[in-house]
Amino acid sequence: MSDTFVIVGGDAAGMSAASKAKREDPDLDVIVFEKGEWVSYGACGLPYYVKGEIEDIEDLVAVPAEEFREERDVDLRTHHEVTGIDPDGKSVTVEGPDGSFEQPYDELLIATGASAIVPPFDGIDLDGVYTMHSLPEGERLKGILGGEETHPDAEISHPPESVAIVGGGYIGLEMAEAFSGRGLDVSVFEMLPHVLQPFGTDVAEVVEDHLREQEVDLHLDTAVERFVGDDHVTGIEAGGETFDADMVLVGVGVDANSDLAADAEVDVGETGAIATDEYGRTKYEDVFAAGDCAEATNVVTGDPTHVPLALTANRAGRAIGQTVGGGDLTEVGDIAGTAVVKVFDLEVARTGVIHHDEAEEAGFDPVSKTIKAPSRAHYYPGGSPITIRLTADRESGKLLGASMVGEEGVANRIDTVATALHAGMTVEDVEYLDLSYAPPFGPTWDPVLTAAKVLRGQLD
Amino acid sequence: MSDTFVIVGGDAAGMSAASKAKREDPDLDVIVFEKGEWVSYGACGLPYYVKGEIEDIEDLVAVPAEEFREERDVDLRTHHEVTGIDPDGKSVTVEGPDGSFEQPYDELLIATGASAIVPPFDGIDLDGVYTMHSLPEGERLKGILGGEETHPDAEISHPPESVAIVGGGYIGLEMAEAFSGRGLDVSVFEMLPHVLQPFGTDVAEVVEDHLREQEVDLHLDTAVERFVGDDHVTGIEAGGETFDADMVLVGVGVDANSDLAADAEVDVGETGAIATDEYGRTKYEDVFAAGDCAEATNVVTGDPTHVPLALTANRAGRAIGQTVGGGDLTEVGDIAGTAVVKVFDLEVARTGVIHHDEAEEAGFDPVSKTIKAPSRAHYYPGGSPITIRLTADRESGKLLGASMVGEEGVANRIDTVATALHAGMTVEDVEYLDLSYAPPFGPTWDPVLTAAKVLRGQLD
Repeated sequence: MSDTFVIVGGDAAGMSAASKAKREDPDLDVIVFEKGEWVSYGACGLPYYVKGEIEDIEDLVAVPAEEFREERDVDLRTHHEVTGIDPDGKSVTVEGPDGSFEQPYDELLIATGASAIVPPFDGIDLDGVYTMHSLPEGERLKGILGGEETHPDAEISHPPESVAIVGGGYIGLEMAEAFSGRGLDVSVFEMLPHVLQPFGTDVAEVVEDHLREQEVDLHLDTAVERFVGDDHVTGIEAGGETFDADMVLVGVGVDANSDLAADAEVDVGETGAIATDEYGRTKYEDVFAAGDCAEATNVVTGDPTHVPLALTANRAGRAIGQTVGGGDLTEVGDIAGTAVVKVFDLEVARTGVIHHDEAEEAGFDPVSKTIKAPSRAHYYPGGSPITIRLTADRESGKLLGASMVGEEGVANRIDTVATALHAGMTVEDVEYLDLSYAPPFGPTWDPVLTAAKVLRGQLD
Repeated sequence: MSDTFVIVGGDAAGMSAASKAKREDPDLDVIVFEKGEWVSYGACGLPYYVKGEIEDIEDLVAVPAEEFREERDVDLRTHHEVTGIDPDGKSVTVEGPDGSFEQPYDELLIATGASAIVPPFDGIDLDGVYTMHSLPEGERLKGILGGEETHPDAEISHPPESVAIVGGGYIGLEMAEAFSGRGLDVSVFEMLPHVLQPFGTDVAEVVEDHLREQEVDLHLDTAVERFVGDDHVTGIEAGGETFDADMVLVGVGVDANSDLAADAEVDVGETGAIATDEYGRTKYEDVFAAGDCAEATNVVTGDPTHVPLALTANRAGRAIGQTVGGGDLTEVGDIAGTAVVKVFDLEVARTGVIHHDEAEEAGFDPVSKTIKAPSRAHYYPGGSPITIRLTADRESGKLLGASMVGEEGVANRIDTVATALHAGMTVEDVEYLDLSYAPPFGPTWDPVLTAAKVLRGQLD
């Protein structure tokens, strides 16, 4: 009898694992339980769907459910929620449309993802307060912007004309662009002194100036106190003031969905995500975890970290599928926490360790330097400045991380630094990279090289 | 008495060395002899100047001569040609406006650059036949396109309406864009089966399709036989046919200006460029060579190579300036031969060793794979395909090189591979890089990762 590989959760990590395992071993029984309707979708595309740049929500689906079922021979069961794991008995409890049942497994992958954090503000349950983490949420929001839902509160203009966004992270700023593109008045409330905390102050300040140019009403260092309204939200109290808003979007981060694992005494790390080894295994060697619910190892510090991003999920799922289907233990890979986000006309990117407290905690003596360099040769028309901040360890010169922002040439340029981090390069190594040059694409010394040159001057 | 550092040639390598040496040791006497008028200029910008995107030729100058003289205290002497080197007597012979003299040196840098190859075709000396390698040549050509010079041959329309470009390399294709932008009918003649030889066939074919879409009349595998005309060129004979042309641009490559060095028994390598060690020294330890006249070491093969590009020149000049001014031997750095060129709407890039004969000669067993991947998430509007060809050594999996082409996301993306080459990564290492992702900038698996994944499948 062939083995049964059970997967809990049908998004990036789960479906990557399912596909890869079946490709490696067509005889393997692969069962995926997904509690919702959608599988294998790009939640990263939701802001552009809401903005209207993507017409059909089905376009966000990478591989349709039927293709998994019919072409890839995966036993994919949507509307099935796994409610318990018995690691000793090697089975899971499943609630499906036809009731509850036990499903035995030989190998199990927990790929339960993450959920938008819902902060305990007064008024969080009012109508018109949304989070944005799933396709149904995106669909509903787009419908509301198009006037599909009638507001129960007659005082609210309809469709909404203003939105208050709580949180200046990725989702908050991508949604600011989306709402602004739909013609809404947008305000953003961030409790920290700067937006985009993982990108550092120097980069954040460039983004903040740009947001203000785009007429986003930006409230930094401003804690939200409560949402105002009777049934439907009508405003937000923050920093001691009240601001009117026809709707509210809460984007204050995500939490790993690790309760199911924790209930089965699978270890959960300090990050709140499931602890795994280099092969994505939990403390039970036949129980894996991957994707937004799991930790990954930071390539710079060697420490477990929780950075729920799409590539990490896809890669780990695929590696686990290879392990389960192919039989050889396959590493899920370390991460550098490389990320890029579009904020209106800006590309904003980061990789590695850039905050000094984080670097110090990992035993480094961090030094940083921020430079500005042009995105094209000084004489070539249309260039714009790129701001780059590089961080390194003073003693060893080891490169620790970088963040960048600019109107062009940032999204791919961060990958030069990410690659250098994976290679364990020093700042001097980076200075000696033979990077490309042509007048339309950069100065002779690539901005990364210039940043390395300047930072090395600080290390001597 | 302070040392005297004599530099022959006032472009990227020479002026970088001069500036750096003076910064390191303000007491050093730094004398630069430049036979022409211009110093420290971006020849790479000439096509855009001719095209009309850059108004003033002085914009191409990175640092004006007066700044070197007045602010950087460099004894810069234009219109001074060094005609001989006496390495034993440690002096050079100089022809200046006031006659000939001997200049003693303590350290000497040969930075004589390269010259456009002038092939021995019949008719090469006709009016209307140009090369494009210096600012005066660029100025003259722009003048002609603007109708400034009268053609001596009355049969020629004026200003020129058609141009035949000999050579489908960087300069040829950049100038094709420039001439096309000026409204000329453009034909390109390439004796090899494909344009852009250093980029490989798969990438070249994409470029060729694009050139044809841009109405460039492309003649591949077509050797030019002679230029036709009495005083002024009126056409070109190639592949047994005659083609009319009001002007001809010859861009068949450059040769290192190494005669001065060779006459002084400084070693010249098989490439025709000056042989140097890792510090840019020739066989005489007080005679350095850098820039387009010198060899550099390929980071993949460890072999000397001649890839005359701007960053290599700047970097080597700066390192030699550091050595001479600062006293500590500083490495000039290896090169990966990383290059990018804009061809109309395409970005075309390469790095490392991509041709199999070259890889085999260096002792590798090369395997290549070409993939196409989208430049944006599949659902994000406006994306276009990127073609990537990766090459690796079969046995070790060591990455050897890459070439890429696409409308966006190529110029900086090649640097991910260049960095991996410097780190000596395998294809598997590349597959595990944590590269950036957001829907506007690429698919979840960056095209470089996908290419590595596919290539690794070939290695197993």
